[in-house]
Amino acid sequence: MPVMAVHSETFEIRTKGKGTYEITSQVEAILEQSKIASGIVTVFVRHTSCSLVIMENAAPAARRDLENFFERLVPENADYEHDDEGPDDSTSHIRMALTRTSEVIPVAARKLQLGTWQGIFLFEHRRAAHRREIVVTVIGE
Amino acid sequence: MPVMAVHSETFEIRTKGKGTYEITSQVEAILEQSKIASGIVTVFVRHTSCSLVIMENAAPAARRDLENFFERLVPENADYEHDDEGPDDSTSHIRMALTRTSEVIPVAARKLQLGTWQGIFLFEHRRAAHRREIVVTVIGE
Amino acid sequence: MPVMAVHSETFEIRTKGKGTYEITSQVEAILEQSKIASGIVTVFVRHTSCSLVIMENAAPAARRDLENFFERLVPENADYEHDDEGPDDSTSHIRMALTRTSEVIPVAARKLQLGTWQGIFLFEHRRAAHRREIVVTVIGE
Repeated sequence: MPVMAVHSETFEIRTKGKGTYEITSQVEAILEQSKIASGIVTVFVRHTSCSLVIMENAAPAARRDLENFFERLVPENADYEHDDEGPDDSTSHIRMALTRTSEVIPVAARKLQLGTWQGIFLFEHRRAAHRREIVVTVIGE
Repeated sequence: MPVMAVHSETFEIRTKGKGTYEITSQVEAILEQSKIASGIVTVFVRHTSCSLVIMENAAPAARRDLENFFERLVPENADYEHDDEGPDDSTSHIRMALTRTSEVIPVAARKLQLGTWQGIFLFEHRRAAHRREIVVTVIGE
Repeated sequence: MPVMAVHSETFEIRTKGKGTYEITSQVEAILEQSKIASGIVTVFVRHTSCSLVIMENAAPAARRDLENFFERLVPENADYEHDDEGPDDSTSHIRMALTRTSEVIPVAARKLQLGTWQGIFLFEHRRAAHRREIVVTVIGE
């Protein structure tokens, strides 16, 4: 009978300002190291000014439309109370809250069960370069 | 002592254009087959132009208000770069990103611990009919 | 070899109208009782008119900006079909759908792996006081 296990690793990604950065291969590498064949992978970003989104992985234009939509939906030039760190301070938290901090992806036959067009992306909401920590936890057998 | 296990199944739902489609009973059926009494159920949709939402399951008017809100918030007639598949192309990805791709629901005494008014819905963002794959993974004992 | 286990508890929080209410310490207390050292904590809110958000835990102004943004994005004075329970009826469901119903946080060395500035918050979308049920499920070893 297979034995249930937990495998967890944290990796870092360096962002160079606002935008979406694919992290699918880093998540896949941790899954492979875990030797877990079936179960779930949970992805968690340890920040409140960037977020996660599972998005179309083929057309960069689709991601630019997403990024531009968030610029219009949560504009920097609105009247925010919290702007200690600049005009992208409160906007980055609001854009984070509208997307995701954690995501759960099923695993079967040792592979992430993403659809054909799905990639996992870090969504950076800050103008400046940042180091971002992402925790990947695999649970299964 | 109870033994931890993983049980996973994929089912398909056929959508007939934009709207919310309840999938609670399909998720419950997979939970029942799993024989797992306590733990979690994770639901994952393998697409980037539809999404998941746990929503009010009693009043259809509440769901129509939600659907109409998304039509206004992410309008089809805005200026998108990515429109290869029509005016519902980028809008469907943006509406997906604003809702959820994965959801986790607790299980106790063999039952989903949804609140009285909560149902699980697929939120279709495409005008045309589609087949949508949903992966349900139960982990527990 | 460590043994995998599930530990689940439900707690209640009393809200006093719209706003964000921190629940990090309640989640930490349940994790501590579970004796689980590594794995995941899932948090689930059993309602459709409030939601969860992992948000900046230091500056109350950042949370006020978030709350005010949602007042503007999903205004009460728009034309909703579903208003049986008042002007905050459909708006509360829409604001819920734009944020989260479930969240998954990794656990290592018996601690939640939240980032320095992350807190877990219940986001109440109703004007009136409510009792809200939150289910916390810990899975790990």
